[in-house]
Amino acid sequence: MAESEFDIIQHYFSGRQPGRADVVAGIGDDAALLRVAPGSELVVCMDTLVAGVHFPESTAAAAIGHKALAVNLSDLAAMGAEPAWATLALTLPASDPDWLRAFADAFFTLADSHGVQLVGGDTTCGPLAVTVQAHGFVPAGQALRRRGARPGDRVYVTGTLGDAGLALHEGVSVPPGLQARLDFPQPRIAAGLALRGQASAAIDISDGLLADLGHLLEYDGLGATLQVDAVPRSADFLAGLQPLGAAGEALFYELPLAAGDDYELCFTVPEDRCHAVQRRLAEIACAGTLVGVIDEVPGIRCHRSTGEPYHPSSSGYRHFNEAG
Amino acid sequence: MAESEFDIIQHYFSGRQPGRADVVAGIGDDAALLRVAPGSELVVCMDTLVAGVHFPESTAAAAIGHKALAVNLSDLAAMGAEPAWATLALTLPASDPDWLRAFADAFFTLADSHGVQLVGGDTTCGPLAVTVQAHGFVPAGQALRRRGARPGDRVYVTGTLGDAGLALHEGVSVPPGLQARLDFPQPRIAAGLALRGQASAAIDISDGLLADLGHLLEYDGLGATLQVDAVPRSADFLAGLQPLGAAGEALFYELPLAAGDDYELCFTVPEDRCHAVQRRLAEIACAGTLVGVIDEVPGIRCHRSTGEPYHPSSSGYRHFNEAG
Repeated sequence: MAESEFDIIQHYFSGRQPGRADVVAGIGDDAALLRVAPGSELVVCMDTLVAGVHFPESTAAAAIGHKALAVNLSDLAAMGAEPAWATLALTLPASDPDWLRAFADAFFTLADSHGVQLVGGDTTCGPLAVTVQAHGFVPAGQALRRRGARPGDRVYVTGTLGDAGLALHEGVSVPPGLQARLDFPQPRIAAGLALRGQASAAIDISDGLLADLGHLLEYDGLGATLQVDAVPRSADFLAGLQPLGAAGEALFYELPLAAGDDYELCFTVPEDRCHAVQRRLAEIACAGTLVGVIDEVPGIRCHRSTGEPYHPSSSGYRHFNEAG
Repeated sequence: MAESEFDIIQHYFSGRQPGRADVVAGIGDDAALLRVAPGSELVVCMDTLVAGVHFPESTAAAAIGHKALAVNLSDLAAMGAEPAWATLALTLPASDPDWLRAFADAFFTLADSHGVQLVGGDTTCGPLAVTVQAHGFVPAGQALRRRGARPGDRVYVTGTLGDAGLALHEGVSVPPGLQARLDFPQPRIAAGLALRGQASAAIDISDGLLADLGHLLEYDGLGATLQVDAVPRSADFLAGLQPLGAAGEALFYELPLAAGDDYELCFTVPEDRCHAVQRRLAEIACAGTLVGVIDEVPGIRCHRSTGEPYHPSSSGYRHFNEAG
């Protein structure tokens, strides 16, 4: 590596942000020193992105810098947490100033937009991989959890699903909006905060709606019925499918249900709170769409608007290089 | 990968430890939920180990599992922090049950010995790399820092130096004790706690004494004079050098000063507190050796016991595969 670890940190990652009042010491000591306000619980999550596994090797540095933080902020959003700090472990095959500048710029743009300060990390030489840990706060006892759904609760999703999956799909001429959904996912922080005290359970959709809703249901041994035509799809998604004919029709169902990487929230709401939730989401201009209902029969049953059952061809997350 | 991410986590990393009272939710949700006691500051650090860079590809899984946590606990020790939680990002080329069991057993053995609970993380497919974030506490305002040394302060190190460096040195028949120092470093948590309120500054020695003392000095624009014959060396280290003749004589100085991976602490103490520090370290059976003194002239000057100056041939950390 042409530059030493210290040079890299100094040049691209230090002194880039205003300091938060709760950061006693950030980058530059053996560890960061941080303050958690009394009455708050600390929420921490960690996700790794590996080149060739979680993103194609050709992915732009800016997209990697954004996404490495975004996928973690999405986990905080699913907990209803307010983001505060991040740490970054960056493993690089070589020190490329242009790459580092683009990576860092995108990382800090997203961090600054959510008031997140980078407080530490590690830069090492090796095959390209990025691990970020995000830290946030919730008032004690108010975190959204995967557990907590009850039979009769309504199942909602934010935004639209299938966009990132279509952008990754081979042979598709990808509208720019879909590529941006894949490369620059926007974590649903405001929605997570709006759902505190309202949603009975929540999870972020990183592995696909069926897989992630499945994780949510398994805690309480519950099931759900989904209206697959109600799952929200974007205009770009529909436009991207149009030239594909019959293959497009299959993807119309498959991608919103089973493709990952959209980083929307899936959450459940007791029936008597649905109006309040819809109002809160409208106030922050976040689409929240009713897609199903929780019941006591384990498993997920899918139906079309015609009433006939829909049988998904896959239900789990596949890394982009396993698709086919 | 033969097993899915969830299977791996379930089989090897869940339900392995008693729960700490300050962990509201650990592994299994989108994020962990944690409580920090009022009056405590949170101390966090993150280090990555990459196969072929930070350890030879042939390193045993147990050594990797131990060391990935140990190097982070060493950073907490240097801050005078009491360890509490860890998160683990494990990137693996394949799912090998024997490897995972050995890795996890060693990780949890060290974690349990310091009361550290694994509260989250991520398992991904890719070239072998391990990132750990460790979390600990210090009473507000009492953390040891890299800054704070004053001219006249004495420079100390814990334990012995050069052991790991000699174990990595080519052409050396390595005594078992040295290999253990390299593979299973013991973080100086108890020493860090004993030094709170006594040491004026501290750092852990991961990159070599000269390099790490240099980091400590640069904050305050200070320098130091070191007595290189006073730097503590182990009996195994001296025995390992004996067959090497003249080459061994050079290594006698070079390795304790410039080789990394020993994970001892280097710390400074105002002269009037030296007796108290020696007594505290003796109480926890930790060797603390006086090796130099801080002065106002930037840089580090080395002297032998004869009084003549010693000029180090290298002063920085070299990854094992850059040595030679």
